[in-house]
Amino acid sequence: MNKKITIIKVGGNIIDDDAKLNAFLSSFAKLKGHKILVHGGGKLATKMAADLAIPRQMVDGRRITDADTLRIVTMVYAGLINKQIVAKLNAHQCRSIGICGADANSIRAHKRKHATIDFGLVGDVDSVDTAALLSLLENELTIVMAPITQDENGQLLNTNADTIAQEIAKALAASATVDLVYSFEKKGVLQDVHDENSVIATMVHTLYEKLKAEQAIFAGMIPKLDNAFEAIRAGVNRVIIGDATALDALIEGKSGTVIC
Amino acid sequence: MNKKITIIKVGGNIIDDDAKLNAFLSSFAKLKGHKILVHGGGKLATKMAADLAIPRQMVDGRRITDADTLRIVTMVYAGLINKQIVAKLNAHQCRSIGICGADANSIRAHKRKHATIDFGLVGDVDSVDTAALLSLLENELTIVMAPITQDENGQLLNTNADTIAQEIAKALAASATVDLVYSFEKKGVLQDVHDENSVIATMVHTLYEKLKAEQAIFAGMIPKLDNAFEAIRAGVNRVIIGDATALDALIEGKSGTVIC
Repeated sequence: MNKKITIIKVGGNIIDDDAKLNAFLSSFAKLKGHKILVHGGGKLATKMAADLAIPRQMVDGRRITDADTLRIVTMVYAGLINKQIVAKLNAHQCRSIGICGADANSIRAHKRKHATIDFGLVGDVDSVDTAALLSLLENELTIVMAPITQDENGQLLNTNADTIAQEIAKALAASATVDLVYSFEKKGVLQDVHDENSVIATMVHTLYEKLKAEQAIFAGMIPKLDNAFEAIRAGVNRVIIGDATALDALIEGKSGTVIC
Repeated sequence: MNKKITIIKVGGNIIDDDAKLNAFLSSFAKLKGHKILVHGGGKLATKMAADLAIPRQMVDGRRITDADTLRIVTMVYAGLINKQIVAKLNAHQCRSIGICGADANSIRAHKRKHATIDFGLVGDVDSVDTAALLSLLENELTIVMAPITQDENGQLLNTNADTIAQEIAKALAASATVDLVYSFEKKGVLQDVHDENSVIATMVHTLYEKLKAEQAIFAGMIPKLDNAFEAIRAGVNRVIIGDATALDALIEGKSGTVIC
């Protein structure tokens, strides 16, 4: 149980910005120990769909993953972005393997079930094969994970990257000390949404409930924080939310918001 | 040295044909022992480039991989086709991991040097990290390899899939008994190019030289056969060329051409 694993989700706004992404990857490559990088796709998939004149499918204001959209996100997330990140990390002497949840059957999912909306080819996670991930990590490989999964019938599914990071963290928490880091373009969870410097250093559940009741927390942060507390309840050591371009400070707890 | 590894390259015409690809994957999934599937991309990358209005770059009649084309082939080969194959093999209970040569630094390449033509972002293979590939195989994973590599500076490179299959076979021959299978839409090497049933069952080098001198061998087959004999000289056990939809018969030596 001495094994320590750091799982870092990097947000789309960082992926979209070459300079920020390179700075992030340079810091990430230097982190010691076992690590997994989970990435989303940023705006590139949306741009590619527009360039290919694939219409955006919306139902009740929610985006639907139809077959054409799935092809695009599989290409962009699991192909282009995944391999560009891997190649850069390798060049930084951080030996990396780029996979998605289908690879090595590492993440098993099913097509989302919903009472009223058919989200199309969107996957919700059933289970994570921790042995598959641990064997890669034990071979001194860093895992770069694209947010595509598959179901038992071989159907690829588009899956939320935050959720994938959380599910991997929860599953690995049974056999390792796991830190889960949500890194993006903001400095952390803010006390005052209008003040970028009002980062809450430590978020406990009572404070979260209070801030939520006061509607002081930015709506987009609520699913992240709900996920974070769920991960802590499931045995994850620390969840940290903060600036992807200050990764070292984040990991050391000198920046961002630590959820515990 | 008892380890046996089967490396199968599947050709583009099979990738392009859903029914043939499914039949091939169903047979491939059932093959016993360690195995590696190397795939190209078929016509999908060309179609995608056309749909995105990316002009085809040609120099002296040879196709050039510019930056836009590299993005397309990385998406299509390492993303869409690779993950579709992995998902189907997993559904056939053949636990697979889809990677390209950049992953785990498994294939190191350099940008092609040529006296007169700049082929663009095309990679020639320097070396194969057999330890990286063997550790995956020893974890009971089937490797699905897309023909993208990287150089030491993190530049992704478009690389010929036949060459990748051959280089992997040669490198692994030092530590295992390796069969290399080039499977495609034809039945094998033909004695008479106009007669699909004139398959040469066994090709030795003296016969090859004779047929080449007589110009009896289809021009497109010559690089494949040159590669095949080079692989045999480098220690590969058998090279088999034949019909992807008759995979069992190929492996058993009951179909196709065996080079030795």
